[in-house]
Amino acid sequence: MSKKRKKVCVAIFSRANYGSIKKVLEQLKKSKRIDLQILSGGSANIEKYGQVSELIKKDNFKIDEEIYFLVDGDKPITMAKTAGLGTVEVSTALERLKPDIVLTVGDRYETLSTVIAAAYMNIPIAHTMGGEVTGTIDESIRHAITKFSHIHFPANKKAKKNIINMGEDPRYVFNVGCPRIDLVKYSLQKKIKNLDNLFFKNGVGKRFDLKKDFITVMQYPVTTEYGQNYKNMREILKAVSKINCPKLIFWPNSDAGSEEISGAIREYREKKQINDAWFVKNLNHEMFFYVLNNTKCLVGNTSAAIREGSYIGVPSVSVGTRQNGRERSKNVINSKPYTNEIYKKIIEQMKVNKKNSKSKMYGDGYASKRIVKILENVNVKIQKKLMY
Amino acid sequence: MSKKRKKVCVAIFSRANYGSIKKVLEQLKKSKRIDLQILSGGSANIEKYGQVSELIKKDNFKIDEEIYFLVDGDKPITMAKTAGLGTVEVSTALERLKPDIVLTVGDRYETLSTVIAAAYMNIPIAHTMGGEVTGTIDESIRHAITKFSHIHFPANKKAKKNIINMGEDPRYVFNVGCPRIDLVKYSLQKKIKNLDNLFFKNGVGKRFDLKKDFITVMQYPVTTEYGQNYKNMREILKAVSKINCPKLIFWPNSDAGSEEISGAIREYREKKQINDAWFVKNLNHEMFFYVLNNTKCLVGNTSAAIREGSYIGVPSVSVGTRQNGRERSKNVINSKPYTNEIYKKIIEQMKVNKKNSKSKMYGDGYASKRIVKILENVNVKIQKKLMY
Amino acid sequence: MSKKRKKVCVAIFSRANYGSIKKVLEQLKKSKRIDLQILSGGSANIEKYGQVSELIKKDNFKIDEEIYFLVDGDKPITMAKTAGLGTVEVSTALERLKPDIVLTVGDRYETLSTVIAAAYMNIPIAHTMGGEVTGTIDESIRHAITKFSHIHFPANKKAKKNIINMGEDPRYVFNVGCPRIDLVKYSLQKKIKNLDNLFFKNGVGKRFDLKKDFITVMQYPVTTEYGQNYKNMREILKAVSKINCPKLIFWPNSDAGSEEISGAIREYREKKQINDAWFVKNLNHEMFFYVLNNTKCLVGNTSAAIREGSYIGVPSVSVGTRQNGRERSKNVINSKPYTNEIYKKIIEQMKVNKKNSKSKMYGDGYASKRIVKILENVNVKIQKKLMY
Amino acid sequence: MSKKRKKVCVAIFSRANYGSIKKVLEQLKKSKRIDLQILSGGSANIEKYGQVSELIKKDNFKIDEEIYFLVDGDKPITMAKTAGLGTVEVSTALERLKPDIVLTVGDRYETLSTVIAAAYMNIPIAHTMGGEVTGTIDESIRHAITKFSHIHFPANKKAKKNIINMGEDPRYVFNVGCPRIDLVKYSLQKKIKNLDNLFFKNGVGKRFDLKKDFITVMQYPVTTEYGQNYKNMREILKAVSKINCPKLIFWPNSDAGSEEISGAIREYREKKQINDAWFVKNLNHEMFFYVLNNTKCLVGNTSAAIREGSYIGVPSVSVGTRQNGRERSKNVINSKPYTNEIYKKIIEQMKVNKKNSKSKMYGDGYASKRIVKILENVNVKIQKKLMY
Repeated sequence: MSKKRKKVCVAIFSRANYGSIKKVLEQLKKSKRIDLQILSGGSANIEKYGQVSELIKKDNFKIDEEIYFLVDGDKPITMAKTAGLGTVEVSTALERLKPDIVLTVGDRYETLSTVIAAAYMNIPIAHTMGGEVTGTIDESIRHAITKFSHIHFPANKKAKKNIINMGEDPRYVFNVGCPRIDLVKYSLQKKIKNLDNLFFKNGVGKRFDLKKDFITVMQYPVTTEYGQNYKNMREILKAVSKINCPKLIFWPNSDAGSEEISGAIREYREKKQINDAWFVKNLNHEMFFYVLNNTKCLVGNTSAAIREGSYIGVPSVSVGTRQNGRERSKNVINSKPYTNEIYKKIIEQMKVNKKNSKSKMYGDGYASKRIVKILENVNVKIQKKLMY
Repeated sequence: MSKKRKKVCVAIFSRANYGSIKKVLEQLKKSKRIDLQILSGGSANIEKYGQVSELIKKDNFKIDEEIYFLVDGDKPITMAKTAGLGTVEVSTALERLKPDIVLTVGDRYETLSTVIAAAYMNIPIAHTMGGEVTGTIDESIRHAITKFSHIHFPANKKAKKNIINMGEDPRYVFNVGCPRIDLVKYSLQKKIKNLDNLFFKNGVGKRFDLKKDFITVMQYPVTTEYGQNYKNMREILKAVSKINCPKLIFWPNSDAGSEEISGAIREYREKKQINDAWFVKNLNHEMFFYVLNNTKCLVGNTSAAIREGSYIGVPSVSVGTRQNGRERSKNVINSKPYTNEIYKKIIEQMKVNKKNSKSKMYGDGYASKRIVKILENVNVKIQKKLMY
Repeated sequence: MSKKRKKVCVAIFSRANYGSIKKVLEQLKKSKRIDLQILSGGSANIEKYGQVSELIKKDNFKIDEEIYFLVDGDKPITMAKTAGLGTVEVSTALERLKPDIVLTVGDRYETLSTVIAAAYMNIPIAHTMGGEVTGTIDESIRHAITKFSHIHFPANKKAKKNIINMGEDPRYVFNVGCPRIDLVKYSLQKKIKNLDNLFFKNGVGKRFDLKKDFITVMQYPVTTEYGQNYKNMREILKAVSKINCPKLIFWPNSDAGSEEISGAIREYREKKQINDAWFVKNLNHEMFFYVLNNTKCLVGNTSAAIREGSYIGVPSVSVGTRQNGRERSKNVINSKPYTNEIYKKIIEQMKVNKKNSKSKMYGDGYASKRIVKILENVNVKIQKKLMY
Repeated sequence: MSKKRKKVCVAIFSRANYGSIKKVLEQLKKSKRIDLQILSGGSANIEKYGQVSELIKKDNFKIDEEIYFLVDGDKPITMAKTAGLGTVEVSTALERLKPDIVLTVGDRYETLSTVIAAAYMNIPIAHTMGGEVTGTIDESIRHAITKFSHIHFPANKKAKKNIINMGEDPRYVFNVGCPRIDLVKYSLQKKIKNLDNLFFKNGVGKRFDLKKDFITVMQYPVTTEYGQNYKNMREILKAVSKINCPKLIFWPNSDAGSEEISGAIREYREKKQINDAWFVKNLNHEMFFYVLNNTKCLVGNTSAAIREGSYIGVPSVSVGTRQNGRERSKNVINSKPYTNEIYKKIIEQMKVNKKNSKSKMYGDGYASKRIVKILENVNVKIQKKLMY
C-alpha cells in the first residue's frame, strides 16, 4: 500500500446526485489518505434546474471542474445526445484531474457518460447504489454501469447478491448501506429555524401549515413510456384534488418526458383545478427530509418513497412502473395510474402510523464512513474479468 | 404476430464488423418479413482505413446512413470522445431510420455508441457474440452491451450460460454459433481465380509464394495496456525475423495504441530488419480466409486465431493478454510477449497438422439463418428486468 | 443555365427564422426550377420553445431534416457549445440533402453553424438580412456570415452598400427588401376570425380588450452584456407598471441571458407587481402583426420595432444597446435602460398617430418573389475572393 | 490602464501555427505586464502529425490546456465536424483559462473554432495575418475571423488596407509584419551543428547532399477543389521526376484532401517512379529555413514560398489556385497544374540568383516585439461595430 494520497473524483450531475453523496464528500474531505476532486455537470450547473453547484460551494466544497453537456429538447434523441456530449466533456475533465478512482452515483443517464469516459481512460470506477432493480431505462443503465465498475457499494444485501450474480468479483462488492440514509439521519436530528419563511421562499401557489396534514406529490418521467407521462400525471392530480388536504407538488427534473409532466401541472395550475397546492422545483435536503418526515402521504414514482421513505417510514403510494422491482419496505403500496385507485390508496395510507413502518433495509446511517474507509484501502486491477 | 415487415438496422463500424455480419445481411435481405437497414460509420467510411463501405456497396447492399465520428489521436481520451461523438451521430441516424430492432456486432468501443443511442431511444437491441470472456476494455464493453440488449445471439454454449448468469431472460438468449464461421465455410468452398495477382495488388514489401509455407502476424493494441503495445510488437517482430520463412504482416486498426504498433512495424520495415515480409492493411474476406487456411502459423493477439481459427484448425500462437479468458480450441497456444518464448512456440506450431485441430466450438456455419429466423419471429418488451 | 432543378435548402432554427422566411418558402415551393428542402433545428423543434416545426408542417411544408443541438444552460459557454454542436449536426443534414444552395436567415448564433458547415462542404451560401448594423454579438456574426456567403439579399440600400464595402462581389449583392415585410403586408390584409378566443388560448395573466389601448413589451437578452439583462428588464417592468393601461408581455427566447429576463418577469408576476398584464411565449405571425398594428406602444429591444414596425409605423421605445446602429425609421425612439426615461418616452409615443410614421425602408412586400427569381437564375463560383 | 497583468491566451493547433507565433510567445513570456497562456489542440497534440506540443514544451513553454477535436476522415464533412467539435472543446478551455485576450494565428479551419468560442464568451480576439488574399476556403475563413476580431496584426500594408476597408476600426489595425519572418531571421543567423545527421533522422527515401542543389516540393490540399488534389500532385511529381536533381518531398498536413496527396506520393514511391527523393512529414523550423535558404527551387502551393520565401528570396513555382491573390514578391512565379508548364518553370527558376529577389514585403523581423507592445497597452470594447 502506497503512502501517496489517492485522488478520488466524485461526479455530481444533478441535485439528486448531491443528496446521495454529500455525506460521502464530507468523509472524503476529512480523509488523510484521499484527495477529493469534485466534477459537477449536467443540471447541477444550470440556474433553471436549481444550480446545486452553488449549494455545493456554500457547503464548503471546492468544485474542480464544471462542465456543460445537457442537450435541450426533452426527447429520447436529446437524451442520447446528452449522454454522448457528456462523454465528450467528462473525458476532458478526467484528463485534467487524472484521478486514481472515479466515484459515481446511481443510475441517471448522465452517469453513464462518466463511466464510459473513465473506462476508456483506464481509470478504476467505484459505484454506489448498484444492483437494485427498478423500471425505466435506469434499469439497463444501472446494470451496465455495474459491468464497467471495479468497486461496488450496493445499499443492501439483495443488491449485493445481484451484483455478484452478474459476475462481479465478490472481493470488491461491499454492502455498505445507502449514503442518502446518512443524510436523512443527520438532517432529522437538526432543528430547522424559521422553517415557514425558508420553506415558502421558493415556489408558488397557496401556502399551508407545515405542522398540519399535507400530501406530497413527486412524479418523474418514465423514459420507456414516452408519451404516457402526461396522462399519468393528470390521473394523479385528479386523485389528489379530490382530497381536502393541502398539497405540496414538485416539478419534475430535466429528463426526456419532463415537459409532459410540467405541462400537466401547468394546466391544472392555470385552470385553478387545484387551489390548495404549493408548487416547488426542489428543496434543500433539510427541508426535503422534513417534508418526508411530516407528510401524511407521499404520492408518485419517486425513489425517495422507497429509499429515504423506508428509514423514516413515510406512508407512500407508488404510481406506475418506474419503481417496479425495487426492493421496498412496508411503508410503500403500489397503485396503477388510475385516478380511483390512486385516490383510494392515498386515503388508506393517510391513516397509517409511520412509526410502525420504519426499516433499515436501505441503510443505518453509516454508509459514508464505510465507503471512505474502503476507498482508502482498496487496490483494484484495471482489467476486469467475468467471475464465473 | 403482425404482418407488418420489421425494420432491422445493422450497424457496421469497421471492416471486422462487416466480416462478422455479412452472412446475416444476406439472409436479412432475403427475408420476406424484414426490411434491412444498414448504418455504416467509424472506420468503415474512411479511405485510409480501407473504407469497407465501398465493399458493402459492391456486394449489392444499400447503405442507408453513413456517419462520421472517429476522433483522431490514438489515445484513451480520443477513444472516449469517439464513443461520445458516436452516440451523438448514431442517435441522428436512428431517428431517421426508426428501426424496430437494432442489431449490433461484437464489442468494439464504437459498438457502445449504437447501443446507448438505441437504449435511450427505446429501440430493442439484438447483440451477436455476447457472453464471451477476453482481456482489454472490450471485456467490460461486451458485458455492458449485454446489459442493454434485449435479444442475445451468443456464439457458443459457454457464452450463452454466461449471459443467462448475468441476469438476462433465458427466453431471449439463443446459442446460434458465430456468423463469421458461416462466412469462413462459404469462402473456403469457393476457388479464388488469379489469386497471386489479386493478393499482391494491395500492400508493400516482398512477394512470396502463397502456395508454400508462410507465417502470418496480426497484433492489435490492448487499450488497458497503453504504452506496452510498441514493446510487445517489437518482441513479435524480433521472433519472426529469426525464422527463415516468408511473413505476412498486418497493420493494426484504428484503436488507441495502434500508432504504437504501426510505429514498431515501420521501424522494422525502414531499417530493413525484416526482408522477407509483405505488409497489408487488410484483405477481403476470401483472401483472409485463404490465408488462415494456408498459413503455417498465425502469430499475434487477433481473435481470428481463436474464432475462425478453431473452425479451420489454424496453428496459432496467441501473444499477450488480449485474448485472455476467451474460450479456445486446441489450435491455439499462448505465449508471453517475449521474443524467445514466441519464437519457440511458433516453431512448435509450424509442425502441427491442422486437420487434427478443427472444432465447431464457435459455430457450424448456419448461424445467420438461425439469427434471421429468430429476428423474424421474436417480440420483446422494451423494459428490461434483472432475472434473478 | 442547366435545365436541372436546383436544390435550395432553407435552415430554420427558431420561430423568428420562420417568420423571416415563410413567404420565401412559399415562392420556392411554387418555383418550377427549384426543389425546396427544409432543415429545422435549434429551438424550432422543441416543445417548450413553441415548436414552430409543427406550424411549418401545418402550413403544408415538408421538413426534410429535423436536428437537435441546443446545449442547455443560458450561458456564454453553452452558446458557444451550441454553435459547435450545431455545426456537427448541420453537416450531417447537408451531407444527406446535398443542396445546390443553402439559404440562411439573419444573424442568430445558430445561423453560424449552418454557414460554417456549408462553407467547409463547398456548398454556396445565400444570406438574407446581411449588412445591417446592430449591437450584441449578432453584429459580429452577421458580418462573418457575409464573409462566408456567396449571394446576398440585404433588406435595404444602406445594407447593400455595407456588404459591397466589406469586399463582396457587387454582382451578387441584391437589395430585395426584407421578406418579413412580405408577411406583414399579407397578414394585415387578412381578417382574423374569432380573434379574442384564439389570442387568449395561449399564455397566462389578465385578459384585456384587444380592440382598445395596450402596451407591448418585448425584451431579449444581450449576450455581450451578460449579467445586465435582469436589471434592464426590471427597469422596463417598473416603467410600464406605472402606466394605467393593459400590457402584453413576451417571455424571451432561448439565448444566453434569457433566464435573467424570465426571472425578472416571474418575480413581477408572482409578486403581483403587475396586475393588468397578459404573458405569452410567442404568437403566430397573424396575431403578432395584429398586435404590432394595434398596440399603442412597443417597448423593448426587439428588432420587430425597427423592421416590421417601420412598415406599420408602430410607435416604439427601443431600450438599451441591442439595436444600436440598426437603421431605423422615425417610428422608433431610443431610451436608456432607466425606469424614468423609459416611462416618459412611452407616454410620449402613446400620443403618436402611426399613420404618419409608415416607411418602406425595410421593404415593400415583394422581397420573396425577387429572392426566388434570383435564386432560379444565379450561378456562383464556390471560391470567394475579396473584391478590392 | 490597469496594473493588473493581462492574460493572453495563444491557440496553437498545428505545427505551422507554432512557427507563425513562436517568436511572439517568447516576447509574451518575457513581458512583465502579460501572463502567457498556451492552448494546444488539433494536430498539435497528435503523434502521427508530428506532435508539435512536445516541441513547445522542449522550448520551455508551459502548455496550459491540451485539447482533442480532430474528426478523422479527410472529407469536407469531417472538416466541418472538426470545426464544430473544436468549438465545443475550445469553449471548455477558455472557461478555465478566462483570458483577457485570445490571440489566434492565421486562417486554418480549426482557427475558426477558437474565434467562435471566444466571440460567444465575450473575450476580445487578436488576429495575426488577417487581410491577405488567397485561394481555398481559407479565404472565407480569414475574412470571417477578421469580422470577429477586435485587434488586427496584418503582415503588410496591403493587408492592413483590406482589413480597414472591411469596416474594422483603424485604431485597432496594426501593420506589424509577419512574426514568421522574425523566426526566419533568427534561424538563419544560427549555425546548425551536425546538420546531415539531424536532417536525415526523420523521413525515408534516398539521402542527398544538403550542400548541393536540390528541389523541394510542398503541396497541400485545396479543399474547394476536393477530388482534384490527387491529380495535381501527380502532375507535380511527374514534372520533378524529369529533372536530374535530388528532391525533398513533404507529406501533406491533416486537411480534407490530404489523403489524395499522400496517395499520389505513396504511389510514386512504391512504384519507384522517383528514385532520388527524400520524404519527410515535417521539419523543425531551423531545418526548414535551412532548406528554404538552400534549395534551388521550391515547388507547390505552400504559402512558405510567398511569405518566408520573399524574405529569403527563394526561387519558387506556385502551382494551382491555393495561393491565388496572395500578394507576392518577384521570387515566385505561377504555374497551372500541368506537368509541362511546371517542368519549364522549375528549370527557369533554378537559374535565378536568390540574392536579387529578397524583399521585406512580409516583414522585417521585428513583428513579435511590436505585437507584444501593442497587446500590453491596448484596451478594446467587446462590442464591435461596422466602421462605415
